[in-house]
Amino acid sequence: MSVHEQAKRAREAAAALATATRATKDTALLAMADALVARAGEILAANAEDVSSARDNGLTAAIIDRLSLTEGRVEAMAGALREMAALPDPVGEVVRGSTLPNGLELRQVRVPFGVVGIIYEGRPNVTVDAAGICLKSGNAALLRGSSSAARSNAALTAVLRDAVAATGLPADAIQLLDASSRDSVKELMRARGLVDVLIPRGGASLIKTVVEESTVPVIETGVGNCHVYVDAAADLDKALTVLLNSKTQRLSTCNTAESVLVHAAVADAFLPRALAAFQEAGVTVHGDPAVAAYSDTVVPATEEDFGTEYLSADISAAVVDSLSSAVAHITRYGSQHTEAIVTESVAAAREFVARVDAAAVMVNASTRFTDGGEFGFGAEIGISTQKLHARGPMGLPELTSTKYIVTGDGHIRS
Amino acid sequence: MSVHEQAKRAREAAAALATATRATKDTALLAMADALVARAGEILAANAEDVSSARDNGLTAAIIDRLSLTEGRVEAMAGALREMAALPDPVGEVVRGSTLPNGLELRQVRVPFGVVGIIYEGRPNVTVDAAGICLKSGNAALLRGSSSAARSNAALTAVLRDAVAATGLPADAIQLLDASSRDSVKELMRARGLVDVLIPRGGASLIKTVVEESTVPVIETGVGNCHVYVDAAADLDKALTVLLNSKTQRLSTCNTAESVLVHAAVADAFLPRALAAFQEAGVTVHGDPAVAAYSDTVVPATEEDFGTEYLSADISAAVVDSLSSAVAHITRYGSQHTEAIVTESVAAAREFVARVDAAAVMVNASTRFTDGGEFGFGAEIGISTQKLHARGPMGLPELTSTKYIVTGDGHIRS
Repeated sequence: MSVHEQAKRAREAAAALATATRATKDTALLAMADALVARAGEILAANAEDVSSARDNGLTAAIIDRLSLTEGRVEAMAGALREMAALPDPVGEVVRGSTLPNGLELRQVRVPFGVVGIIYEGRPNVTVDAAGICLKSGNAALLRGSSSAARSNAALTAVLRDAVAATGLPADAIQLLDASSRDSVKELMRARGLVDVLIPRGGASLIKTVVEESTVPVIETGVGNCHVYVDAAADLDKALTVLLNSKTQRLSTCNTAESVLVHAAVADAFLPRALAAFQEAGVTVHGDPAVAAYSDTVVPATEEDFGTEYLSADISAAVVDSLSSAVAHITRYGSQHTEAIVTESVAAAREFVARVDAAAVMVNASTRFTDGGEFGFGAEIGISTQKLHARGPMGLPELTSTKYIVTGDGHIRS
Repeated sequence: MSVHEQAKRAREAAAALATATRATKDTALLAMADALVARAGEILAANAEDVSSARDNGLTAAIIDRLSLTEGRVEAMAGALREMAALPDPVGEVVRGSTLPNGLELRQVRVPFGVVGIIYEGRPNVTVDAAGICLKSGNAALLRGSSSAARSNAALTAVLRDAVAATGLPADAIQLLDASSRDSVKELMRARGLVDVLIPRGGASLIKTVVEESTVPVIETGVGNCHVYVDAAADLDKALTVLLNSKTQRLSTCNTAESVLVHAAVADAFLPRALAAFQEAGVTVHGDPAVAAYSDTVVPATEEDFGTEYLSADISAAVVDSLSSAVAHITRYGSQHTEAIVTESVAAAREFVARVDAAAVMVNASTRFTDGGEFGFGAEIGISTQKLHARGPMGLPELTSTKYIVTGDGHIRS
């Protein structure tokens, strides 16, 4: 079936989903969870084929790990759906409302987008998460996963679609697109009028392609060149803890710190400790000359280093002469994802928060906190790094639009 | 100067605007208003040249009227700026916030977009409105008006920039782009990273071009094929009043009704009255055979008529056999702008509101109410017909993004 035909079916399914009650949607989510567990055998069998192909194709151990499912991982996917069922329904929420001077009653109410397209990489759990989040928010999902997970995703969506249909909602609320060629991505990007929003998840090149070529509105996600700035007024113990956690708690996430900026006034006291801690943690520091002066373990940083999202055990480092210099550096090299300051000074914190342009600004906290789960959203479809519509972690409300409802008694405009 | 260079200057100006207090911004708005009045002479002189060229080029009387300024119109533009000064500042508003289980304090706060590009047609008052709305919301404005208003717009922006600079804010907060060629539009559409959002106002073809070619995120505005549905349970007096107001109160606006759907059960009672009223008002009705049966003044409607935004003294009309048929017709032909139902039935109103997918749904009220001023927003930059970010009339909050601010005491993620 063509993507266009799938999108048309999604559009019809979306009309039914838009008016489905929370009770119906939650019943479907729980049925989806139960079905995943009940049919884990066929899911794991399909996944074993994907994993075997991935081994034959020489994919890395890290990719194979992300691709691999176990009974425990299937249980976890089911658990995520059960948690979504427990979350409030964003649809129908009155965002604002008033009675106008002429007596008209005005309400702005959350409604689903309609059809959401998601392009993502190898992890099969994203298939389940995205399908669940879209269904809970009343949207039909067009899922374009990785070809490496094609058999796993086909098995998962077959199970989910059956469960959805059994609860009386249209199975086409969840559809998997052909992952065997790039054509399905191209068709999805040109399906304006049928697809309401496209969310690319994955590497910078995929996101760039989609942003440049899509006529469907896009929510850009996920590139994070995050900084930790250690201010002149920092508590250096907190600074060390926050910096290490930001860099090393997980290396390959978009909210991992990739650069540290240290105020010159505390460089002597802080950098020797930080460099030793990074060496112990196996992290290579790419530093400017001022940083390199503190240790011969420092690799000289190039201009390119400061603009790089390493996603590895590397960090760039520089000494700055003021908070303003730190902000200027971040403005130049940052990706507007998450930026952190460590300081005991209220004035410095205020200035940093006001002047840094990013989805999230941390004061005395790890960059790793920029996350829908940590923020208490309960479900997350990605982290937006654009300013339009949603910025930062996107939960259920971010998958909705709004509609104005105006009620009168024959009111006319004069 | 190239658009790229202007966009870079706008970006720098935006950094200053983002941290400007409400008091500073309001002072600038009032200074802009005063300057318009004080320097009305040079504005009117420049406008007279534009009007003279427009006459020489044979532009229509309607276009020349929209282009023409008078002392009264300059006063009105100044008045709009003074009203903006009185509106609350959207920047800094805490949209949501909580203390997380680990003690982290989370706030989501409104921040300006940064740089907003606006492409618009011949009316010079849009130059002042857009500059004012952008400044109040902390955004730098890149204004690309019509070539027919080039001299008026140059005079207006010169006055506004001087006033802004005199209050200590950067003059480059307001910049006019070269309107003499399409190149400035093209450059603006490709200025991703410098321009945060692009708002095209004007005809369907401009909007289509921008949506298809822009890599800068776009907010689509303004095409309205709006319907009035007269339900079986309508009060027919209200229906007639609402329908006539929706069609004739102003013919050329996007919230003007372009189509009427009448339930078969009330066709006999309603259509003769409606057709007579339209004839009296000079409105041509393009009807399906069921409508045409009531009067030989009805022009047979083609398929194309039902999809047309006339913006003239024309309306398409059809008889439908149910509310569901009305919704299906609207889903097929509508532009998701404003749709109205006239009914005394709570059940019918509920169903219509739930099933019609549009920025605004009116119950017993004229489609003409979809307007930032009528909704009490105080200022409007356009009416969004897309679902991403803003839908319906866009006021000051719609010109902002948000930023998460997370404050801790050395918090790390475990």
